[in-house]
Amino acid sequence: MSHSNLKFIQREQLKVKPKASELGFGKYFTDHMFVMDYSTEQGWYDGRIVPYGPISLDPSAMVFHYGQEVFEGMKAYKTEKEGIVLFRPNMNVKRMNDSCDRLSIPQIDTEYVLSAIKELIKIDQEWIPEGDGTSLYIRPFIIATEPCLGVRAAKQYQLLVIMSPVGSYYKEGIHPVSIYVEDHYVRAVRGGTGAAKTSGNYAAGIKAQEVAKDLGYSQVLWLDGVENKYIEEVGSMNVFFKVNGEVITPELSGSILAGITRDSVIAMLRSWGVPVTERKISVEELFDAHQKGQLEEAFGTGTAAVISPIGSMKWEEQQIEIAGGEIGECAHKLYDSITGIQRGTLDDPFGWRQVVK
Amino acid sequence: MSHSNLKFIQREQLKVKPKASELGFGKYFTDHMFVMDYSTEQGWYDGRIVPYGPISLDPSAMVFHYGQEVFEGMKAYKTEKEGIVLFRPNMNVKRMNDSCDRLSIPQIDTEYVLSAIKELIKIDQEWIPEGDGTSLYIRPFIIATEPCLGVRAAKQYQLLVIMSPVGSYYKEGIHPVSIYVEDHYVRAVRGGTGAAKTSGNYAAGIKAQEVAKDLGYSQVLWLDGVENKYIEEVGSMNVFFKVNGEVITPELSGSILAGITRDSVIAMLRSWGVPVTERKISVEELFDAHQKGQLEEAFGTGTAAVISPIGSMKWEEQQIEIAGGEIGECAHKLYDSITGIQRGTLDDPFGWRQVVK
Ligand SMILES: Cc1ncc(COP(=O)(O)O)c(C=O)c1O
Ligand SMILES: Cc1ncc(COP(=O)(O)O)c(C=O)c1O
Repeated sequence: MSHSNLKFIQREQLKVKPKASELGFGKYFTDHMFVMDYSTEQGWYDGRIVPYGPISLDPSAMVFHYGQEVFEGMKAYKTEKEGIVLFRPNMNVKRMNDSCDRLSIPQIDTEYVLSAIKELIKIDQEWIPEGDGTSLYIRPFIIATEPCLGVRAAKQYQLLVIMSPVGSYYKEGIHPVSIYVEDHYVRAVRGGTGAAKTSGNYAAGIKAQEVAKDLGYSQVLWLDGVENKYIEEVGSMNVFFKVNGEVITPELSGSILAGITRDSVIAMLRSWGVPVTERKISVEELFDAHQKGQLEEAFGTGTAAVISPIGSMKWEEQQIEIAGGEIGECAHKLYDSITGIQRGTLDDPFGWRQVVK
Repeated sequence: MSHSNLKFIQREQLKVKPKASELGFGKYFTDHMFVMDYSTEQGWYDGRIVPYGPISLDPSAMVFHYGQEVFEGMKAYKTEKEGIVLFRPNMNVKRMNDSCDRLSIPQIDTEYVLSAIKELIKIDQEWIPEGDGTSLYIRPFIIATEPCLGVRAAKQYQLLVIMSPVGSYYKEGIHPVSIYVEDHYVRAVRGGTGAAKTSGNYAAGIKAQEVAKDLGYSQVLWLDGVENKYIEEVGSMNVFFKVNGEVITPELSGSILAGITRDSVIAMLRSWGVPVTERKISVEELFDAHQKGQLEEAFGTGTAAVISPIGSMKWEEQQIEIAGGEIGECAHKLYDSITGIQRGTLDDPFGWRQVVK
């Protein structure tokens, strides 16, 4: 798609870029952003790249009251051979539409939005950090902007894409985290919004995360909302276990996000001949496997950390150590292989890289 | 509390007020709003009444991404004898703090916020409509404003109070609605955020509401998220049934909002000597009661409609008519009694009215 009709208003005075060591996650934003509006009469219209800056909304804008919102998260990398690349971005825009469907938000033209994102990346390419493990995090999101207090789908929306240079997730090298199995608070339930990337799911999880942090754990492992028994996700990541040589991960039950890293991990493991099963996994089964000495590894998967090895898990009165508190072999190999593809230092047999420029 | 330190910036040019016939719900807003900020360093600070108008937020403001938000809804009425009154407003500000607790939002000083609301009402008192059934709807809400992409409790918030003159809920007199029992989509589950007044709960419900509307029903009846069996709420209202002379309503299980109208209805019925029980109620039990000819009435309760009689209910393949599709006696008496207290035409034995001015 040509962008001859994509309006671009350039920032007059470019911002000072932060030092690589100060990046962190989601603290700094680039010079420009993509914005597009929706009305029932016009559909999506007026896509434009403008200087990054505050947005002005009526205090009755529906997003503030009834939470009609969806978002996405992906990363751009600077590679030596191919220049700037994205990792499976088609899956992000496709998933955005799935989220829109659940939230009664009008569908977007995925091709158009993806090409606008690429345009934005090109304009702000100087912002892509080059340090080890760094990247440019891209956050597309849609909010209901109609000024009206009434619980129903809005008639006006705004889609924005903002970008943030982010530091390495693992400043001191990839390391295992401690997990608290949450058996009181619930993140999502089948029939709810758990399979969509929408703000309310995250709001529901903050309290449990604080409780876990206070107890000294770094992430929460969520159980299903119906029986409080089956494993769903860990923090904002999908979760995998290696039990007796087989890798298992919770099936996409309707209350779990269909992670793109999850999908990539499954494909990669299978290409290596490692058996992977998607099914229901109860915490009890897992702790039993540990008792029998069969729980070999556990790790989370997501765009932010790629692979996050789990070193220990606490459930009710039981606390277990996994893989001796070290990074499992499988997690390590997956991390190296996926980040290698993302950063262009490894071949891309799956065709996951997409060149921006 | 004195308001000598409550800053007030008056609007220069007052808006033109809409005609009583055009009011609707939540479409028009008064001349001013109350705003207050929060930072971890200063706590809540800079409470001020300013001209109603757009708010400016960084696109990375956390409310847009992780949905940390709570809100309230109450009404002010113009009465003949006592001037402007509110209905049990202490319960709203108290409930707001309960919602804040679930969403990891800092507590507010309920007395201060309530006095600020009263101040705002006095300033914009000309906006309180006088027509039959009309009132001034008041919407306090808190949003996470910190500009940061990270799933955790924000460090900056804004509390706003906006006000909207609203028309009569029942333009052609109080009338029964048709209800669709939702057995696929789920609004809330125990351990989730259903007991809090937070945006994500409403976002989760929009899709089901659209399905019900398309099938010709005006509201959704929500079942519990665990067993899909027990009745929770109807639309954005609590729900009551009269079965064989006894009034029953779902107990506050943790996934239901503790409605102020619900509380008032229970107190009023008991004062009349009508037995009221709060307990689990399965849809099946209810449809059985109907079969036996014992389901005498059904109605929703909430600030917007006060009492909303239910004339028919559809569940799976069964469609039943309640109270002959008419308004039940109990619902009618409750409606007249509560609105009478609210509008100052009846005595207030419970002390529910609070005079603003
Ligand atoms: C709730 C949740 N689960 C899982 C994931 C992982 O998805 P992805 O691999 O697409 O980043 C995310 C997002 O990163 C998430 O927010
Ligand atoms: C989900 C929900 N349930 C019930 C109610 C009724 O509560 P109240 O009577 O306090 O208005 C409301 C709000 O009006 C609501 O949003």
